[in-house]
Amino acid sequence: MKVISDIQQMQAWSKEIHRRRKTIGFVPTMGYLHEGHLSLMRRARKENDELVISIFVNPTQFGPGEDFKRYPRNFSRDKELSKSCGVDVIFYPRARDMYPQGYKTCVDVEDLSNVLCGASRPGHFRGVSTVVLKLFNIVQPDAAYFGRKDAQQAIVVEKMVKDLNLALRIKTLPTIREKEGLALSSRNTYLNKQQRENAVILYKSLQTAVGMIQSGHKDPRKIIAQMRKMIKSRRGARIDYIRIVDIRSLTEVKRIKGRLLIAVAVFFGKTRLIDNAIIRA
Amino acid sequence: MKVISDIQQMQAWSKEIHRRRKTIGFVPTMGYLHEGHLSLMRRARKENDELVISIFVNPTQFGPGEDFKRYPRNFSRDKELSKSCGVDVIFYPRARDMYPQGYKTCVDVEDLSNVLCGASRPGHFRGVSTVVLKLFNIVQPDAAYFGRKDAQQAIVVEKMVKDLNLALRIKTLPTIREKEGLALSSRNTYLNKQQRENAVILYKSLQTAVGMIQSGHKDPRKIIAQMRKMIKSRRGARIDYIRIVDIRSLTEVKRIKGRLLIAVAVFFGKTRLIDNAIIRA
Repeated sequence: MKVISDIQQMQAWSKEIHRRRKTIGFVPTMGYLHEGHLSLMRRARKENDELVISIFVNPTQFGPGEDFKRYPRNFSRDKELSKSCGVDVIFYPRARDMYPQGYKTCVDVEDLSNVLCGASRPGHFRGVSTVVLKLFNIVQPDAAYFGRKDAQQAIVVEKMVKDLNLALRIKTLPTIREKEGLALSSRNTYLNKQQRENAVILYKSLQTAVGMIQSGHKDPRKIIAQMRKMIKSRRGARIDYIRIVDIRSLTEVKRIKGRLLIAVAVFFGKTRLIDNAIIRA
Repeated sequence: MKVISDIQQMQAWSKEIHRRRKTIGFVPTMGYLHEGHLSLMRRARKENDELVISIFVNPTQFGPGEDFKRYPRNFSRDKELSKSCGVDVIFYPRARDMYPQGYKTCVDVEDLSNVLCGASRPGHFRGVSTVVLKLFNIVQPDAAYFGRKDAQQAIVVEKMVKDLNLALRIKTLPTIREKEGLALSSRNTYLNKQQRENAVILYKSLQTAVGMIQSGHKDPRKIIAQMRKMIKSRRGARIDYIRIVDIRSLTEVKRIKGRLLIAVAVFFGKTRLIDNAIIRA
């Protein structure tokens, strides 16, 4: 397994792979790998000749006052985990090379970027789509793998890839959860024991919503009210949003119908957790 | 010579070329080819194994009230000219395939896009950088060729390529002029005989500016005043802007120093013409 930090070197490596008519699977990450990342890496390993992951805590997708500085990092542990999943290259760039002085270019996926998490975190998805595009241009993958936990991210990236005619496929894989249901996230490390127990309510409220829809409820407001009640019952939970949206446009639905994304964001202390469920009604 | 309209087919063609370790030179155009385009094609022909041009009058870089509908088109003549320059593929997409319903993604090169022509034509360079990025992703060139006549366009595209880590080189070639000095442009076809004669003043005013700088003038206001006086002397000339800017930041200089772009935009009737000179002072 190689670790490549140099952008040109990474591009040259990928170019040579393509010349040999081999495929590259790519898992972009911010590191501090957990079983969610590993599930993406294992799938990418199976489906491609070569497997590249990137580890880069991208400053431009964090807002002022967010957790960029304290975001958890552990490169030597990430390296071991990557090796165990059969990674061929870890692309591990420096921020000053990704955004040199005078950097000016950004990508925007309109409409999809300013709702849900984008409403709470202005500029977040601009940062995400720009860095993901840069990483795609550097790594030149045939397929890139994202977790369904960050559903809006996957939807924004998929739309960007389609709109900009990038020659690669986006694969979005199911959220990996702890036994009790908490979605895996590098940010779970911020939670104390009690917060971690209480955070299970995100998953439980989503299960309740899915159950209500499956049993025929049609009014999103009633479903959201029930979810709100459940989440509020947990000590220290502060709701950022609960939304039921059309999965393509991400606009709120007035009536339960079609393919829907039920998305929640909840603070426990300073830690903001997200989770979601997808259902066809 | 092939004409390819289908995006996937174009991508597949380019992918196969790269697998054979051959290079692709690319000249993006809006068609109605003139000697300026042909000079780019000839250079690209020399420097690459394969030569692709695109012909696409991109709707998103025209503002409301601009000349999108009447922009001159002559595909069969363009085909003949392309053949004579040794073009291998004309990529000739349909607007509905480039921007299908629900299209949402755009690219912005900040600061460089809202000055000079960008100030007069809001959204123009967003349209340019987005379509050029799409074309690059479809054609996958090793080098792309632009004319210095559209200096700001070349500067914006070059910055985008660098910032987004696109694996290709941008080459900007000198403006091709008529004998008297008028810069070639597809839009010259809009001019009547008298307008065409008067339009030579753009080039003459630029020559005067260059002469003043070479003879030691240091105050851009005095140089611009002289240019303004010359251009205004021509019947029907309406100045959009005259600027002397730093060639990297495109910001106006207070004193003549360093590598400078002298840029002018002037209306004759409804026709907006641009021209420029580059000088190191």
